[in-house]
Amino acid sequence: MVRVLRAGVCETDLQLIRGYMGFSGVLGHEFVGVAEDGPYAGRRVVGEINCSCWECATCLAGRPTHCPNRTTIGIANHDGAFADYLAVPQRNLHVVPDAMETDVAVFTEPVAAAFQIPEQIALNRSERVVVLGDGRLGNLCAQVLAGICDPVLVVGKHPTKLALLDALGIETTLVGELPENHMADVVVDCTGSETGLPTALKLVRPRGTIVLKTTVAGSQQMPWAPIVIDEVTIVGSRCGPFDRALEALEAGSVSVLPMISERFDLSQGVEALDAATRPGVLKVLIDVTGGAD
Amino acid sequence: MVRVLRAGVCETDLQLIRGYMGFSGVLGHEFVGVAEDGPYAGRRVVGEINCSCWECATCLAGRPTHCPNRTTIGIANHDGAFADYLAVPQRNLHVVPDAMETDVAVFTEPVAAAFQIPEQIALNRSERVVVLGDGRLGNLCAQVLAGICDPVLVVGKHPTKLALLDALGIETTLVGELPENHMADVVVDCTGSETGLPTALKLVRPRGTIVLKTTVAGSQQMPWAPIVIDEVTIVGSRCGPFDRALEALEAGSVSVLPMISERFDLSQGVEALDAATRPGVLKVLIDVTGGAD
Repeated sequence: MVRVLRAGVCETDLQLIRGYMGFSGVLGHEFVGVAEDGPYAGRRVVGEINCSCWECATCLAGRPTHCPNRTTIGIANHDGAFADYLAVPQRNLHVVPDAMETDVAVFTEPVAAAFQIPEQIALNRSERVVVLGDGRLGNLCAQVLAGICDPVLVVGKHPTKLALLDALGIETTLVGELPENHMADVVVDCTGSETGLPTALKLVRPRGTIVLKTTVAGSQQMPWAPIVIDEVTIVGSRCGPFDRALEALEAGSVSVLPMISERFDLSQGVEALDAATRPGVLKVLIDVTGGAD
Repeated sequence: MVRVLRAGVCETDLQLIRGYMGFSGVLGHEFVGVAEDGPYAGRRVVGEINCSCWECATCLAGRPTHCPNRTTIGIANHDGAFADYLAVPQRNLHVVPDAMETDVAVFTEPVAAAFQIPEQIALNRSERVVVLGDGRLGNLCAQVLAGICDPVLVVGKHPTKLALLDALGIETTLVGELPENHMADVVVDCTGSETGLPTALKLVRPRGTIVLKTTVAGSQQMPWAPIVIDEVTIVGSRCGPFDRALEALEAGSVSVLPMISERFDLSQGVEALDAATRPGVLKVLIDVTGGAD
């Protein structure tokens, strides 16, 4: 049992309320709380969101985040963190370092998702990376990849969001001023939009790689032939390593506090989700404790 | 200049006459001929189909088959092999071993396409491979992959085509009797159909790989979310290494003669293409020399 201190609103939450996954229950999968029991009792914790059986062939093959018997906190058959308390399997919990602010630690889950990219594909320093999307996840993916590759270019729609990345020395451009076609070794789609993959196919070089980080509800239409003609590789990418995310947040190599746009109490959940849909808004936090932690 | 002896009809030819690539010109990109001039004059040759500039950044980066200035024999801005003669860049030519039948050598191009799969993805002996499609390319991909992985399962619609693979000791099943979902490490789509990729997504395991070998004209509709949720990798795969194909054909490790269904003279080109669309027909050959070579 975890007493929630702070929770974050994610693009997936916005997709879920539009019907993605057919989820019915308590939303919220980015959280910091205090363990109420178990070996971490009394300490601040963050939690991995896939609750796996650890007994099936998929788990035993080393892919527990794909366990067919899993529940997913705040996403599938498991009530989430927009609540006073939530239940999390003990082995999913990670202790938050004492010196780390709760407002920083609440970014562990999306930062881990960004670190899943270098877990899945080999990246060389000289690879030209383009990140599509200047939102919550696009920002974090760009920061993580800029620590590995040079140059990283972020394509976005919102000058204020791009300015945060500019301030970190990461190259940005507005979507109307897209660079020349077929110049990127790797394109990471963080748009959460049907336009992401078709745009990525225009930007990626032959035999390049497109990483899909965001899901889109429903069916999408696109010509598939360019995937074959250009021998492109498309990699779906989801949840990532919490330990690497906590290390990066502790080292300060990923900057998250400037991304906090608005804060709401738990009683203002609907307003919080609404705020997260507004252009120009990055991370919306929910203060379950009213800010006292 | 190459004097054509024999040409093969490929699924891509059938797509081209439906409008794929907007090609206007002489079809035919699978051929054996006699070099009329150059260092191979008088010898039988086969030819790679991408005619690259060898000077641009893409060529210099080692990806000549993706040269943006390329023409493609019988497919894009380059007249093909359903003709008495065709022009092929000297560096695209490979000499056919003297002992190899012309009817065998005419399969070099599609066998090379099958060998492109192990060029692009790492395959272990124990990987469970499913090939979707029992047609021309599906048969060759299954044979090449069965030399690397065990088991290889071919899913098809035509008992007579599957019987050819059964005879080679390769496991087959009818599409109505698909194996359980999410069991394959690698799925190779050789269907040339809009149903291929959605079916592949049902069969591949989480973090598995789908190889797209065939192109489909037009736009296709599909939900993309499963690619992300299951962290699937999709790899587009096109032309492959002629040297490996010729070696395999010379060694007899790929069996091609039983795939020849029908033969036509060059004057019967329309009939030849028509025959290639009929269910149950595998490779259709065009005897440009009337069988004398």
